Amino acid sequence: MTRIYNFSAGPAALPVEVLEQAQRDLVDWQGAGLSVMEMSHRGKEFMGIAAQAEADLRELMQIPDTYKVLFLQGGASLQFAMVPLNLLRGRQKADYVNTGQWSKKAISEAKKYCQVNVVASSEDRNFSYVPPQSDWRLDPEAAYVHVTTNETIGGVEFDFTPDTGEVPLVADASSHILSKPIDVSRYGLIYAGAQKNIGPAGLTLVIVREDLLGHALPITPTMLDYRIQADNESMYNTPPTFAVYVAGLVFQWLKRQGGLAGMEQINIRKAQKLYGLIDSNDFYASPVAKNNRSRMNVPFTLRDPALDEGFLKEAKARGLVQLKGHRSVGGMRASIYNAMPEEGVDALVAFMREFAAQHG
Amino acid sequence: MTRIYNFSAGPAALPVEVLEQAQRDLVDWQGAGLSVMEMSHRGKEFMGIAAQAEADLRELMQIPDTYKVLFLQGGASLQFAMVPLNLLRGRQKADYVNTGQWSKKAISEAKKYCQVNVVASSEDRNFSYVPPQSDWRLDPEAAYVHVTTNETIGGVEFDFTPDTGEVPLVADASSHILSKPIDVSRYGLIYAGAQKNIGPAGLTLVIVREDLLGHALPITPTMLDYRIQADNESMYNTPPTFAVYVAGLVFQWLKRQGGLAGMEQINIRKAQKLYGLIDSNDFYASPVAKNNRSRMNVPFTLRDPALDEGFLKEAKARGLVQLKGHRSVGGMRASIYNAMPEEGVDALVAFMREFAAQHG
Repeated sequence: MTRIYNFSAGPAALPVEVLEQAQRDLVDWQGAGLSVMEMSHRGKEFMGIAAQAEADLRELMQIPDTYKVLFLQGGASLQFAMVPLNLLRGRQKADYVNTGQWSKKAISEAKKYCQVNVVASSEDRNFSYVPPQSDWRLDPEAAYVHVTTNETIGGVEFDFTPDTGEVPLVADASSHILSKPIDVSRYGLIYAGAQKNIGPAGLTLVIVREDLLGHALPITPTMLDYRIQADNESMYNTPPTFAVYVAGLVFQWLKRQGGLAGMEQINIRKAQKLYGLIDSNDFYASPVAKNNRSRMNVPFTLRDPALDEGFLKEAKARGLVQLKGHRSVGGMRASIYNAMPEEGVDALVAFMREFAAQHG
Repeated sequence: MTRIYNFSAGPAALPVEVLEQAQRDLVDWQGAGLSVMEMSHRGKEFMGIAAQAEADLRELMQIPDTYKVLFLQGGASLQFAMVPLNLLRGRQKADYVNTGQWSKKAISEAKKYCQVNVVASSEDRNFSYVPPQSDWRLDPEAAYVHVTTNETIGGVEFDFTPDTGEVPLVADASSHILSKPIDVSRYGLIYAGAQKNIGPAGLTLVIVREDLLGHALPITPTMLDYRIQADNESMYNTPPTFAVYVAGLVFQWLKRQGGLAGMEQINIRKAQKLYGLIDSNDFYASPVAKNNRSRMNVPFTLRDPALDEGFLKEAKARGLVQLKGHRSVGGMRASIYNAMPEEGVDALVAFMREFAAQHG
């Protein structure tokens, strides 16, 4: 088989070791005589798999004991509703920072349930930077402050952890979770769709400070109540068992990479190679402010958009796929999550250099 | 490898052919150089997989063109909220038939959003039968009538399709969908968690008559609005791609079994063998009225409950697992979904006969 280099923004590449392990055990998991997909979620085999996944994640992220780890469904888009449904705690308003397409969706959904204050926005410069906290107009009465710490479409990443005082900080970290160590204790809640850096689509990770739970609005569907999910260890009903299992394999793979500190070093190197090439000539350009360039999602443009199609076609012929930029931004986007090997970035950089030389 | 016979109520056994096919293609799907888990849901490979799955399901169930097929997340438990959130259509009340533990959960959740009329209940005889429709007190002003056409825990299955006139009939068919042909046009909406007869946990199937859509309550999270999901072909956000893919393999497997009519004949034979053994002696007993005995979930008791533990232990030693009854019912339960081969039922029946002879 010839594996391609897949720069998809998500669902995205998984570590080949993880896929091979899942393949070996697919029909008969560790000699148990059945597939993980066939296991009762309340049986001891799957309970063990889920417990190990949570323990490994807690170790990787150094999650304090005062936080619950939930394995849910519905993606970040469902969290856009679950956050206000659960975290208003008797308050009427919440603060949101608008840094791109995903922030906008979170804001739009929250307006169904509370008064949304957009405390800062980078829309003035087409979402190409993160507004510095000195410019935010935070409301001390807000139920929480919501940020999108990495905008998948715009390729904009926070280079600081906001300080929101007593007001809980809520982060959509879907597209850069596990790419570097973070201090979980600075957040009230962190959520992430799995299909970028965690595992297969259909799984959503929520890490939430326990004291924030138990205040869901009465209209909240039972399945969307964090407290119910926490009390049932994410098994109020049948969880997406196979996705939890694959996520667990990814966590073990991350530990073998030296944990999140080790992973961060690799990610810094990969990002530097790609941005370095982009900055080294005037054939390519990055639309993002230098200090907010995402290590995970790298949008870039070609000097002449008429060359875009040829670029994509030649890249594909070399096994470099899913490089087309999001329709709302145009140009190209290379998503280089944890599972993208450094050789994949090297191959992309080499191709880009040649393509520029040929067409520049 | 030695495959066991897994009588789990869900997640449940999958056809071994399906697992082997998923295994072959796990790292490199049909030479495309990547796993299905790594495919962008908007790329042509996955769009093709999803379209084929829907087409095969439509063919198997003969779903009219006036119905939408949705591949969602959250299980039947989330449908318990989504049904009233979407289908009240300006009305204030809904009719529910109470036939067991899952009906009760659906009723409890619906009470958050409307006035629930329990139009019939079999709680008087411990949920061991389906109340005949002649006893239902239907309300012509109800927004819909909700039934649980197969109760997974009680092992009680409808032996008729209710006639609710102009009021849409809504069915939780989680644990017997695809086990036999049904006339979809008799229903307004049918829903089912995947982890019994469809595919892996984390996928929920909804089949809904299109004219019922577009009336979600304003408090409905966007992700829970059937209309939004239908307009986006179940890709408002990233769907559970791998689960959709495996479900598609199951649909193709079902076509090879002769479709739902062929599957029904096999299921009738399997159920007759098991109930036949239960009825042929006084060592075992079925708590369910004969005409409502489920072909999928077969609860039974041993004459002496003191023998339960030994029964489970000896069964397990023979590779017959997950036979313990639900805590709310006790005794045993054998779930014999589509994927349980007839040889698995034969092995169980042979063991039960021997155990009775030994201990009877």
